[in-house]
Amino acid sequence: MSKFLINKYQSLDVYTPGEQPKDMEYVKLNTNESPYPPSKGVLEAITDEEISKLNLYPDPECKGLREKIASLYNVNAENVFLSNGSDDILNFSFMAFCSDECEAVFPNISYGFYKVFGDLHRVKYTEIPLKKDFTIDVNDYINVGKTVVIANPNAPTGLMLTLCDIEKIVSSNPDNVVVIDEAYIDFGGTTCVPLTEKYDNLLVVQTYSKSRSMAGARLGFAIGSKALIEDLNRIKYSTNPYNINRLTLLAGAAAIDDNDYYMDCCKKIIETREYTKKKLTELGFTYLDSMTNFIFAKSDKISGDDYYKKLKENGVLVRHFSNPAISDYVRITVGTKEQMDKLFEVTQRIL
Amino acid sequence: MSKFLINKYQSLDVYTPGEQPKDMEYVKLNTNESPYPPSKGVLEAITDEEISKLNLYPDPECKGLREKIASLYNVNAENVFLSNGSDDILNFSFMAFCSDECEAVFPNISYGFYKVFGDLHRVKYTEIPLKKDFTIDVNDYINVGKTVVIANPNAPTGLMLTLCDIEKIVSSNPDNVVVIDEAYIDFGGTTCVPLTEKYDNLLVVQTYSKSRSMAGARLGFAIGSKALIEDLNRIKYSTNPYNINRLTLLAGAAAIDDNDYYMDCCKKIIETREYTKKKLTELGFTYLDSMTNFIFAKSDKISGDDYYKKLKENGVLVRHFSNPAISDYVRITVGTKEQMDKLFEVTQRIL
Repeated sequence: MSKFLINKYQSLDVYTPGEQPKDMEYVKLNTNESPYPPSKGVLEAITDEEISKLNLYPDPECKGLREKIASLYNVNAENVFLSNGSDDILNFSFMAFCSDECEAVFPNISYGFYKVFGDLHRVKYTEIPLKKDFTIDVNDYINVGKTVVIANPNAPTGLMLTLCDIEKIVSSNPDNVVVIDEAYIDFGGTTCVPLTEKYDNLLVVQTYSKSRSMAGARLGFAIGSKALIEDLNRIKYSTNPYNINRLTLLAGAAAIDDNDYYMDCCKKIIETREYTKKKLTELGFTYLDSMTNFIFAKSDKISGDDYYKKLKENGVLVRHFSNPAISDYVRITVGTKEQMDKLFEVTQRIL
Repeated sequence: MSKFLINKYQSLDVYTPGEQPKDMEYVKLNTNESPYPPSKGVLEAITDEEISKLNLYPDPECKGLREKIASLYNVNAENVFLSNGSDDILNFSFMAFCSDECEAVFPNISYGFYKVFGDLHRVKYTEIPLKKDFTIDVNDYINVGKTVVIANPNAPTGLMLTLCDIEKIVSSNPDNVVVIDEAYIDFGGTTCVPLTEKYDNLLVVQTYSKSRSMAGARLGFAIGSKALIEDLNRIKYSTNPYNINRLTLLAGAAAIDDNDYYMDCCKKIIETREYTKKKLTELGFTYLDSMTNFIFAKSDKISGDDYYKKLKENGVLVRHFSNPAISDYVRITVGTKEQMDKLFEVTQRIL
């Protein structure tokens, strides 16, 4: 830290991304990436001709891609916001819809970045405890009268609220924005995007980083009422209007055309997830009933931290969180069947 | 705007990027892009194999590219910060080094985004008038005791302060950060990066968008003391740690390897700039003595606004600013000789 950094950021606890050690080849099950490459259309979209046009700025309005996404989700282009990954959109949402007076609420165990955004922007926020079984108590959010941020399915638990519960939260807080972070929705969940037609306070955030195999391309989108999208654009045009790469815009559009491929990948990941659950049971693990591309699991035979460390020594990366409420667990990304078999083999050796 | 947008952003004047009309093919001289494509190495770096790896997150530390840039500028990797375009870095700098108590100063005629960042983050700032000849009066910034932000060369004037003047500003404000925005430094200027070794309060910001033909790739970098870079990383890791695309990281590194190509492109642009100045004189224009890839020019025969509009009608885009102090002028990007000849031909017709 320099002596020049202004006071309010001096005590920030920043977000810690999943590690990317370079000392050896790891089986990487720690950042919830898809194990499958982007579709053929993405490869075909990034031509030499397009690379040669990198001297030109991208379209800040991202018109073409917004139209594609709108048509896939049955909304209008004016209901779609695009930015440099869904983290960017969540950050903008904390800026636009939360403040000292306009408090935020989110679960105490959820995506770690919500707290970071809250601290960064000096937002007053409350972290609402999960129930003992790690589920969200929907009653905590009904009529709460604050900006609600919920990951659905939640991370790192993998558990999901029903569409009916989401609607109860949205409809009971008409004077506050409800942000539903659907980063993991495509792994068996049902998106609440159709509710955005009915509720002007609902913002649904999705990402290309998980189900669309493009964590490296940096692309996220949000769907909501025209006015909410205008608010996000106001923030974007006050920070970094050109924040999406030209090639990413092309890749993102090609991925929508290849939607079937990605849905097939999700199906494979769901199959591998269920296979993994079975195997983990055989190995004596318990786990939450994930609806995502990761499984939050623990064993009575080894602590979460030890298991994480031993796996790493043996070339397998998973994610461990030091928060005592969940430190027994590790979060295991669902990779390919071969990657999971490697995990099981190493786990057997460790136990 | 929605009814949910928090008060402080309701009156924001956002930044207006240069227009990108799609109704016809334009000679695009309005956003200071390079007319030359990225180098061969960039095309070679973006292979199908690398595109296939887009399912994986980029390296948030950008280690490889930081090392390349460090070696080109004779600094250490810990002195280099990378982000999603230099706008992103300028935004972070306003966040990290300016506040209500820690005021900012910048010229009243300069890159329009400084004011936007100041407003966005509720920073107290003073816009210091340029001299009548549109030059910056260095005395205004000596011992000013505030965070200084100067584009050098300045935009949209194209005029440059000497290294000696920059050093006077930096050395006389040891308790404040001095941000030198060198977006256009490669078109004949001398970078002040070497001064970062001597002064811990100097942050130099550069971009790949102009001299490195990669406006569409979204890449900017800053060089400064280790502590200043840590501050910027603190903001980056609290907003969007993965904000640079995987392919952009590769392209950025390849561009450093191909540095000679880009310096050749700059040489060509400088030649075309000088040719353009000569031609503009012949057409009765006056202009400031640009050290950038654009020329700020005006004619007594036509108002800036009319000239801009007539050019657009005739398929040539330049940038016009409505600020009355500079509304006589248009900012003309230096393109290829062919593009400039088209401009002259159309101009002759208009006048």
